[in-house]
Amino acid sequence: MGLDPYLGSMPEVFLDGYRASTDGGLAAACACIEDYCAAIIEAVEPHVAAVKLQLACFEPYGPPGMDVFARLCREARSRGLLVIADAKRGDIGLSAAAYSAAFLGRPGGLTGGLDGYGVDAMTVNPLFGSDGIEPFIKDCEAYGKGIFILVKTSNPGSAELQDLAVGDGGRMFHEHLAGLIRDWGSSLVGAGGYSSVGAVVGATHPDTIKRLREVLPKAFFLLPGYGAQGATAADVAPAFDDKGLGALVSASRSIIYAGDDESFATAATGAAEKMKQELWAAVR
Amino acid sequence: MGLDPYLGSMPEVFLDGYRASTDGGLAAACACIEDYCAAIIEAVEPHVAAVKLQLACFEPYGPPGMDVFARLCREARSRGLLVIADAKRGDIGLSAAAYSAAFLGRPGGLTGGLDGYGVDAMTVNPLFGSDGIEPFIKDCEAYGKGIFILVKTSNPGSAELQDLAVGDGGRMFHEHLAGLIRDWGSSLVGAGGYSSVGAVVGATHPDTIKRLREVLPKAFFLLPGYGAQGATAADVAPAFDDKGLGALVSASRSIIYAGDDESFATAATGAAEKMKQELWAAVR
Repeated sequence: MGLDPYLGSMPEVFLDGYRASTDGGLAAACACIEDYCAAIIEAVEPHVAAVKLQLACFEPYGPPGMDVFARLCREARSRGLLVIADAKRGDIGLSAAAYSAAFLGRPGGLTGGLDGYGVDAMTVNPLFGSDGIEPFIKDCEAYGKGIFILVKTSNPGSAELQDLAVGDGGRMFHEHLAGLIRDWGSSLVGAGGYSSVGAVVGATHPDTIKRLREVLPKAFFLLPGYGAQGATAADVAPAFDDKGLGALVSASRSIIYAGDDESFATAATGAAEKMKQELWAAVR
Repeated sequence: MGLDPYLGSMPEVFLDGYRASTDGGLAAACACIEDYCAAIIEAVEPHVAAVKLQLACFEPYGPPGMDVFARLCREARSRGLLVIADAKRGDIGLSAAAYSAAFLGRPGGLTGGLDGYGVDAMTVNPLFGSDGIEPFIKDCEAYGKGIFILVKTSNPGSAELQDLAVGDGGRMFHEHLAGLIRDWGSSLVGAGGYSSVGAVVGATHPDTIKRLREVLPKAFFLLPGYGAQGATAADVAPAFDDKGLGALVSASRSIIYAGDDESFATAATGAAEKMKQELWAAVR
């Protein structure tokens, strides 16, 4: 499940309670986000494997917003769910290492390493090339974590740069990038046959999923765009291997805003269960 | 000046004071970063136009680290310096809008807009295409802010993806991207002849600076990599117009770690003044 909490998408009846009892400022916004997400996490726990938290929904609320992010990560982990920070961070050298430490590793302190957010995996932007990726890969190995590198995003505009034809062979940019990801992840393939270095591929591009699965047989795929963005179980089925493994399909809006009244959590349970059944039917 | 505070790069004698008087934990790390950066900002104020804060140095320290970031932004602005958030954020649609609100605009609250970090400009990753850039451009217009879009980064590995030949004409990926940036910024050109949509070009690539200046005559250039990364005043001079305007040259390590003892702030003043004079000599 993708957790992308936007106040503007939450049921009015839920928001009204906070409008009535608070000044409507930063603290109220943070309380709304935390309470709504905590209720949703509890509601979907039996039906989802992982929660992907969208950092863009927490960073606008400053340090208190990041406190909410940290608490929701702990809440999800305490329920046995894997936590993915959808941070899409990327930078060069030392800065990439610092972002990696923030989410996966141990930030540098005065007398040793400190605790970071300590999520299970994060999304990473590859535009900088190998030296921007290596620090994340080092932390995957050192701390038993994972990364999902953006290959082909789910938005319509993704074609503008990601589908450019590159080199002489007519391959697209994202296909070339997939080859790099295969190399970057080759030394981190675990007993299950999959690498700690995964790939983000928009579920909205079924043909691309098929092609990239051939280039990247050992990459775990993270497939956002299920549900509200239009992708179906049939679209994502080719990402899975013959044991039904190898991919995480992410839906956000279709689950977390499935209800538009006070029963939003019950509606989320239903939507998550339905998605699980759709996927099982298509994958098995 | 680029403000990239790493504890491991600060003078030992400075750190020793915090090791002796604190438990060396998160609060001590944050105090080090804040005190060091505040002293540096004060020291260089007469010689720099803008301070570029590297978010990767603050995010590892969680919500308290982001509090330090926010206070340093206010400190720099109160001294009349422009503040650039070197955040390199990028995402699709709603999420891009949320990142833009966090740094440039007004995050959505329960009863209207809230205060964000409110910096003057930020760096943005363009991999998602137009629909990932438009929300930032809207906020540039609405709030009188600027963005610098990554075109060609200063690291050696930047060639792997950013220099790929694309399309039929043999243009490189970053040259194609520069064409998009020209279009994205065309409606936001101010009275000074420059657009609110600028470009990040590594100062370590002098030939690239020359070529991109021809494609992007109206883009303000942000040129990191001066000093410690090897770029010189002669390398960056072609980014400036005949009035000596149109670019910001950023040096971090060569200024903020110019001294390795308790006189680090004085050393920073000297390094910033020297850089200013080198640039003036080369540009005028």
